Amino acid sequence: MSKKIVIVGNGTAGASVALAARKADRKAEITILERNSFPTFSKCALPFVIEGKIKEFEDITVFSHKFFRQQKINLVNNAEVAAIDPDAKKVVYTLDGAERAIEYDKLALTTGGYAWQPRTEGDETGNVFVLRDIADGEKIRAVALKSRTGVVNGASFIAGEIAEAFVTRGLKTTMIVRSRMMRTMIDADMSKIVEQHMIDNGVDLIKGETISRVIGNGTVKAVVAGDHEIPCDVLVNSTGVRSDVTLAKSIGLETGTTGGVVVDKSMKTSNGDIYTAGDCAEDRFGLLGFPFVSLLGTVATRQGVVAGQNMVGGKTQVAPFYNAAVIKFFGLQIGSVGMTSDIAEANGMKVEALKVTHTTLPHYFPGGKDVHVKLLADPGTGKLVGAQVLAEETVPETINTLSLAIQNGMTIPQIAMADFCYAPPCADIWAPASIAAQGLGRKLAAKARRAKK
Amino acid sequence: MSKKIVIVGNGTAGASVALAARKADRKAEITILERNSFPTFSKCALPFVIEGKIKEFEDITVFSHKFFRQQKINLVNNAEVAAIDPDAKKVVYTLDGAERAIEYDKLALTTGGYAWQPRTEGDETGNVFVLRDIADGEKIRAVALKSRTGVVNGASFIAGEIAEAFVTRGLKTTMIVRSRMMRTMIDADMSKIVEQHMIDNGVDLIKGETISRVIGNGTVKAVVAGDHEIPCDVLVNSTGVRSDVTLAKSIGLETGTTGGVVVDKSMKTSNGDIYTAGDCAEDRFGLLGFPFVSLLGTVATRQGVVAGQNMVGGKTQVAPFYNAAVIKFFGLQIGSVGMTSDIAEANGMKVEALKVTHTTLPHYFPGGKDVHVKLLADPGTGKLVGAQVLAEETVPETINTLSLAIQNGMTIPQIAMADFCYAPPCADIWAPASIAAQGLGRKLAAKARRAKK
Repeated sequence: MSKKIVIVGNGTAGASVALAARKADRKAEITILERNSFPTFSKCALPFVIEGKIKEFEDITVFSHKFFRQQKINLVNNAEVAAIDPDAKKVVYTLDGAERAIEYDKLALTTGGYAWQPRTEGDETGNVFVLRDIADGEKIRAVALKSRTGVVNGASFIAGEIAEAFVTRGLKTTMIVRSRMMRTMIDADMSKIVEQHMIDNGVDLIKGETISRVIGNGTVKAVVAGDHEIPCDVLVNSTGVRSDVTLAKSIGLETGTTGGVVVDKSMKTSNGDIYTAGDCAEDRFGLLGFPFVSLLGTVATRQGVVAGQNMVGGKTQVAPFYNAAVIKFFGLQIGSVGMTSDIAEANGMKVEALKVTHTTLPHYFPGGKDVHVKLLADPGTGKLVGAQVLAEETVPETINTLSLAIQNGMTIPQIAMADFCYAPPCADIWAPASIAAQGLGRKLAAKARRAKK
Repeated sequence: MSKKIVIVGNGTAGASVALAARKADRKAEITILERNSFPTFSKCALPFVIEGKIKEFEDITVFSHKFFRQQKINLVNNAEVAAIDPDAKKVVYTLDGAERAIEYDKLALTTGGYAWQPRTEGDETGNVFVLRDIADGEKIRAVALKSRTGVVNGASFIAGEIAEAFVTRGLKTTMIVRSRMMRTMIDADMSKIVEQHMIDNGVDLIKGETISRVIGNGTVKAVVAGDHEIPCDVLVNSTGVRSDVTLAKSIGLETGTTGGVVVDKSMKTSNGDIYTAGDCAEDRFGLLGFPFVSLLGTVATRQGVVAGQNMVGGKTQVAPFYNAAVIKFFGLQIGSVGMTSDIAEANGMKVEALKVTHTTLPHYFPGGKDVHVKLLADPGTGKLVGAQVLAEETVPETINTLSLAIQNGMTIPQIAMADFCYAPPCADIWAPASIAAQGLGRKLAAKARRAKK
């Protein structure tokens, strides 16, 4: 008999589960229950439709309804899961006002994350948004097009992209940054470069403050942050994403210190017939092994592939992840992999780090762009444990290079002398990462000499 | 007493030896004997001055005379080495017509390579050139600026760059390609893409022919290749580089099957006081360990650093090299690392390979460029042994990524699921290299299944 696979949530993780299961088992009955009405879309692309770089929300479809039909994946939209009975292996959901039930052999709870924000006086006012799906995106774009001022509450991925979208749409734009920009991804010295870049591109940054009050009457008119009262026609709160584990908790699945659902390397939860992946899954970081919810689409995809394969009888394990990530604000690519200094310290490691600024091309070749590379090493082993790169180009692939260096446990001296390529119109004779590694190698060696004395 | 270091040849390798020795030993007496009259310049940049992308030949200076003086490196230009006495540890050279001698504790013979070409009837005619140094470059540029037609004899790095320079300068340009373009770097299917790209950019390609005759009277007027007689005001021969081992052989240093000087991992030759590096050094390829002369500036630099450190008492070894290389013709970046199918087969390995074409950005994001990625695996171990990438951008860093994959012995399935980064305006959710690895992984698995039956 063919296996019954049920997936709750059609985000990046859920869709990856479905497609991997289908690839591995042509006969499985695969059903996805999805609360919203859309095909699988790229959540990461939403800000670019608001900005206008991508024309319409339908353009960011990743897997169309038609493609899922061809793959014999039964996507049920507008299906709100009411209850799960793990003993009867049954999911109860409502659709068109009627209650229905579906049985499963294996269930994936890929319920993703939700936009988390501290409640503030007045934030129930109109034109105050979070951005999680196409419906949110459509509303924000519609309001932004009629607005003169916009405020973004937050300092991370989506916040920076929305700020850029607002500026592009001609809004006077303010970001309220509680600590510093991209704090989970880069160190403080790198944040400074990013923040200056936002300011240079017309964003007003208010740092060290949070929104204490939203002023409006029906729709938002201003926000108050510290001593500032900032005129505001549209407010987007982007202060964080937390794992959505309501369903998981309702059936007693184990959750961890991060708030995510605990999984093993096969992406199985504490219930042997239930898997998860993506923003609601607590995996372990590839370095030091601390529990970590990645929130990245790449990790969700790879976890989803493994979960999907295993749900139809596979025996694969997730590869360790190092949170290789990149983002782009106003032409500046911001990349990171491994641990930041803060994350390392929070997990008991005091890293040795070095930042260099070099260029993408040799000094004699026109058109080179500045590249800032920061490498972080474990002084005990000399191994690379983190890397951060800022530049207008070359960042994603440089991060991938350094990701493989971390994944393979390469030491700083090994990276310094690794075989990297060069040609005057493409790359300098020493890659910026090599130069950073050479400098950090000298710093580590000097430290080791001092320790011996 | 301070060590006496003498270096013959101030190319990339020689200059690297000098600077590494200086960094490691502040007191060493370091002398470079150089035949030509220039400071250290970038040989790889010569075509771009001919093209005009770089304004003047003095702009491609890498280490100025002043910088060498500051580093207390004694660069003696116009010094022609006449003889070496390895027993007396003495180098005899002529300068300004006078014979001089210098003693050494350690000697580096970094004599580089010379442009090799088959002799042809008429090739002593004027305006027939090779490009090895600034003097050559100046002559080629001067003649090209007055020419209407140009012919490049060759199909590799410098040949393609000169062809681009000629087209940019408005010359009707023909390349005579004996076999196929970039044969030592990429497979035949990838060469086809490069060749079509050259044709699309205005280069006439004559394939499968060599020049049989140069026609001219004082200066070249035409060349004959097969049935073709091609009008030609300037001819550049770029048919290969061979190790310049005249001096090495004159003192009985061991040379290998490649024609280069045999070295150990410390870059020492068969004479314990003499080192070499760069285009005249026969190192061993990082895969399979066959003897190989790299001819790359990056390898020359790293070898030079190791030689320089060891000449003043260091104990470092060269890291294995995999010939990570990149080049750019008319905006197309061409990258390679590891073995090509041909090189692998010549050394006893029949690779399994797969080529995919993907884009630099997700399908829904404007501005993505095609990326062609070919991965080559050892079917026995499933490990990556070669990678070739063609695209308008992202190639050098992608090659570096794949270089680390090879250097660390990663298998194709490991690469397929490696932690790479993504963001819609920067990179797709699966990197092109991941997609190629996924496809090649399926191919290897299918092959393994067939073998079991």
